[in-house]
Amino acid sequence: MADIISGKTIRDQILEELRPEVERLTNAGTQPCLAVILVGSDPASQVYVGSKRRTSEQLGMRSLSHDLPATTTQEELEALIRQLNDDPTVHGILCQLPLPDELNEVRVIQTLSPDKDVDGLHPINAGLIAMGTPKFISCTPYGVLQLLKRSGVQTSGSHAVVLGRSNLFGRPMATLLSSKGWDATVTTCHSRTRDLPSVTSQADILIAAIGRPEFVTAEMVKPGAVVIDVGINRIEDASAPKGSRLVGDVAYGPVSEIASAITPVPGGVGPMTIAMLMVNTVNSARWQQGLPSLEL
Amino acid sequence: MADIISGKTIRDQILEELRPEVERLTNAGTQPCLAVILVGSDPASQVYVGSKRRTSEQLGMRSLSHDLPATTTQEELEALIRQLNDDPTVHGILCQLPLPDELNEVRVIQTLSPDKDVDGLHPINAGLIAMGTPKFISCTPYGVLQLLKRSGVQTSGSHAVVLGRSNLFGRPMATLLSSKGWDATVTTCHSRTRDLPSVTSQADILIAAIGRPEFVTAEMVKPGAVVIDVGINRIEDASAPKGSRLVGDVAYGPVSEIASAITPVPGGVGPMTIAMLMVNTVNSARWQQGLPSLEL
Repeated sequence: MADIISGKTIRDQILEELRPEVERLTNAGTQPCLAVILVGSDPASQVYVGSKRRTSEQLGMRSLSHDLPATTTQEELEALIRQLNDDPTVHGILCQLPLPDELNEVRVIQTLSPDKDVDGLHPINAGLIAMGTPKFISCTPYGVLQLLKRSGVQTSGSHAVVLGRSNLFGRPMATLLSSKGWDATVTTCHSRTRDLPSVTSQADILIAAIGRPEFVTAEMVKPGAVVIDVGINRIEDASAPKGSRLVGDVAYGPVSEIASAITPVPGGVGPMTIAMLMVNTVNSARWQQGLPSLEL
Repeated sequence: MADIISGKTIRDQILEELRPEVERLTNAGTQPCLAVILVGSDPASQVYVGSKRRTSEQLGMRSLSHDLPATTTQEELEALIRQLNDDPTVHGILCQLPLPDELNEVRVIQTLSPDKDVDGLHPINAGLIAMGTPKFISCTPYGVLQLLKRSGVQTSGSHAVVLGRSNLFGRPMATLLSSKGWDATVTTCHSRTRDLPSVTSQADILIAAIGRPEFVTAEMVKPGAVVIDVGINRIEDASAPKGSRLVGDVAYGPVSEIASAITPVPGGVGPMTIAMLMVNTVNSARWQQGLPSLEL
């Protein structure tokens, strides 16, 4: 049976490592500050935003909440972002996505100062990853790197297969894993890949992010592989209390019998994103002080 | 024997397609203009710069030459770039690299307006490629895409292996080939890849950019593969008139016996870069007029 890579445990480790650094920065006059903008009242977004605000406060950071009505105009939202860009006491700005349909997400993202873009959404931050000099790494791929590192998975020389090519995850994940220091040989697969099982079954590290419930079956996995499941899908299940349950992109039961290590869903990659958001905010405060990034 | 993919022929096709578009833009009041900056007197750089200027003039474009002494300061160079950024009659700015050691290349590149960065060096342009919405694509990977397309190579569903992970070539090449529309399954290999021949011999399309003369041997290539050689290396050869000759990263003779198509060195990828620089400059002029990119 595979070892279970617990995102909750590793998230908690990282948060505990951040706590004294937040205190040190605060005592030195720079309390890390994360501004979180929520437009409208989408229930899922409210849950996510609440958890980000709570975690930053629990760490001793300053949390700025901007809850705007769904009727907010593009100009009003951009004006708020520019005001936060210009405020030297704010180190990270997060604008919870998705935005209401009337607002232009691409323009909002490009309004964010790349120096406060703790979600790593601005094209300049995607470009710095592509150029091998990352600043803010988007939280999900950054979290996967930490899961691998802190589980003792050797990436250098290994063959990693990334299923999915999204802007937010697959692209930066593939680039980061093949970059210097991580040094994996990386294959990117997607919906147009021919004979997918023949590719995935070569993976020493298989990372699934295609948004299809339990798509990766045991036949697609090399015995002994490390399997990282980035998917979160709700499927019907009459036997579950709510009539449905969450599953990943990997058929957890059968795959966990042949993998050497696997992340569960929930409790794997998911919890890591919030930890990496906190890391990015603390690093932003450090950079403002002329300090290097934290060693994680 | 493999078909030879001639970069010279395809370059000439593209330049001929650009000529009437340059004339049309000029008649409409927007003569495309490329400003080329050369700092110092490196002989190789002088050759490259001369050829870029000549080609743009031959196409009917306006060519601005800025030849600066090797003693130019960072401030002077950045001031010139800002002046060209602000000049609406200039559509493309190219600062020939490498710069003299005293100058900071990264800062120079970030001074370039991303809207005139026809070499595709600015991180925001690398980011737009990573995000699936490219604006300026750097000339070498862009040239390879055109070589593949105009040679009738089917990328969708094929397995492409890119040898090399440089900012300027391997990274954007892998990302572009796996992006929507091109749809290849892409593996990125590099110096840390284990058992390289077992990976390269799976490639339907093998792209070599590792800077090692004749590194890719026939044993590493699947029979019938398409082989693109991005390397340019000068090796000693007592039998050659100059005592040396240019070779690529691929052992051309033996590999051309089993590949279905191959680019020669010289005369393959090299000639394409200048054509794509001209395409980028013409597109920049088109965008200024609110027109979409050329269909190539």
